[in-house]
Amino acid sequence: MSEHSWTVDHRLSDDESNVHYDWSHERSPVLTVESGDVVRFDCRDASNGQLGTDATVETLRSLRFDGHPLTGPVAIEGAAPGEVLEVELLEFEHRGYGFTYFYEGDAGKGLLPEEFDEPGLHIWELDDDVARFVDGIEVPVNPFPGCIGVAPRANGTHSTTPPRRVGGNVDIKHLTAGSTVYLPIEVEGGLFSIGDCHAAQGDGEVCVTGIEAPMSVTARLTRRPDISVEEPQFETTGPFTASGVDEPMYATAGIDSDLMTASEKAIEHMIDHLHEERGLSRGEAYLLCSVAVDLKINEVVDAPNWVVSAYLPESIFSA
Amino acid sequence: MSEHSWTVDHRLSDDESNVHYDWSHERSPVLTVESGDVVRFDCRDASNGQLGTDATVETLRSLRFDGHPLTGPVAIEGAAPGEVLEVELLEFEHRGYGFTYFYEGDAGKGLLPEEFDEPGLHIWELDDDVARFVDGIEVPVNPFPGCIGVAPRANGTHSTTPPRRVGGNVDIKHLTAGSTVYLPIEVEGGLFSIGDCHAAQGDGEVCVTGIEAPMSVTARLTRRPDISVEEPQFETTGPFTASGVDEPMYATAGIDSDLMTASEKAIEHMIDHLHEERGLSRGEAYLLCSVAVDLKINEVVDAPNWVVSAYLPESIFSA
Repeated sequence: MSEHSWTVDHRLSDDESNVHYDWSHERSPVLTVESGDVVRFDCRDASNGQLGTDATVETLRSLRFDGHPLTGPVAIEGAAPGEVLEVELLEFEHRGYGFTYFYEGDAGKGLLPEEFDEPGLHIWELDDDVARFVDGIEVPVNPFPGCIGVAPRANGTHSTTPPRRVGGNVDIKHLTAGSTVYLPIEVEGGLFSIGDCHAAQGDGEVCVTGIEAPMSVTARLTRRPDISVEEPQFETTGPFTASGVDEPMYATAGIDSDLMTASEKAIEHMIDHLHEERGLSRGEAYLLCSVAVDLKINEVVDAPNWVVSAYLPESIFSA
Repeated sequence: MSEHSWTVDHRLSDDESNVHYDWSHERSPVLTVESGDVVRFDCRDASNGQLGTDATVETLRSLRFDGHPLTGPVAIEGAAPGEVLEVELLEFEHRGYGFTYFYEGDAGKGLLPEEFDEPGLHIWELDDDVARFVDGIEVPVNPFPGCIGVAPRANGTHSTTPPRRVGGNVDIKHLTAGSTVYLPIEVEGGLFSIGDCHAAQGDGEVCVTGIEAPMSVTARLTRRPDISVEEPQFETTGPFTASGVDEPMYATAGIDSDLMTASEKAIEHMIDHLHEERGLSRGEAYLLCSVAVDLKINEVVDAPNWVVSAYLPESIFSA
């Protein structure tokens, strides 16, 4: 453990009493903190512990999803609607494993479920630096929370799946340690929750999962009555490439009048590339796209056709 | 001029006889080369020379767009439909200036024309490394061709504006010197053309122009009967950040059930940020977004809402 410039003021375990599976501003906070306090959150993985290191495709068949298990909510004293919650992400600690999976056909979500007639699963061994795939492929470990948000103002309960202006399941892979997120507060106290941590993910998270992993997250929560944001904003230093410096990438363009279709085409071409040039099965390729390939919008202005490309860092093959 | 590992086999000037303003496979090649030859193309800027260093917003008012002026077409001996044209981009040479502009309201294209009631224009002074904006803001110069493609098989003439599977106006900012592009050939000889060079651009090119600039481009054209691609693919070493290494970025998320609307929201928030925190006018901010801010797709799988974020490299303010 390195020396820190912070001390943990509060710890929240991932006991069932600290975990919730939907968003509701009517839920009582499990902790109330002063602005500026540092909280260490233990977070369950997205499967709520159903997928362990011995999981198989058969385990996937019986997986039940009742919402992302989120740790919280935490109230920040004095936080009021219209203000901003500043969340400094200080440290992530994983448990040495994670998993990536997709479902096929009608059972599937994600970008291309119809291209597969069976599900896919990879259990990853994680160390501090890399996650191991197959055939000498290693993906850098750069943990972040898939879900990070405050409670929406709207009454009732709300699914954890779609992200909203208050955050939630934003799946922004750049929210790594050292990043700061600004969230618009809609209710008294803010009611902050976090979870669904990923050890790595590509921009797009195309197969519907990153490297899903149980983790602990340490974050400083600060009330910012002096600023306002309409949707989440953030400061980050990346990673913007796998190695942290400009490096060789292989990229496949998708060109279409619809950005989603362009994204699908780009990933289809990348799956072809990984299958034909790198010897992966198409299922393995789809999993790897979801954790290591980035979708960038090249242009959205040359009507009627837009370009989205998928970028594969060649450095992940150097292991 | 540094030492090269190539020699130029052919030169194509940007005389009117070597320039065309639409795509048509019925156009006779202005040059026929052997596979592997290196060609130096002089390329006019996207305004076809109408915008010089003394241009003003008034000049924009009288600008006439008849298609991107493209240099070519070049036939590659023996190239046949179904094969791939490999284009190694070897060198770019600009003329020391470039321009970025947008039109307002109904006259405008791009992502957010309705947010402006007057057009915007910036004339850039370029050196080998940077392009100068305002108030100590410098954008790195990383030239690439906005338009790069081969002739489509479909009969008739085709606008240069939309990109197609054979390439064209793809506006992929990573097609810098050292990159290699693979284009699907649809007609005998391939009929390759190039132009619309940009000295810099953000992913998205949101205001509809990058740093538009006349340039010369040196490229090696190689017939690849041994491979096939459905849409353009490419190898690149970036730039993936402004400085070439992971660096601080400020990012604004746009969350919506439509990827285009999410992109619009992300850029609207970034314009707000540049206006409020960096003191730019909203028009200046929109221009800067188009040349220096990158749109990334964070997730396309958390139905019904997707996340697109706009990333601003803070290093451009260090000048």
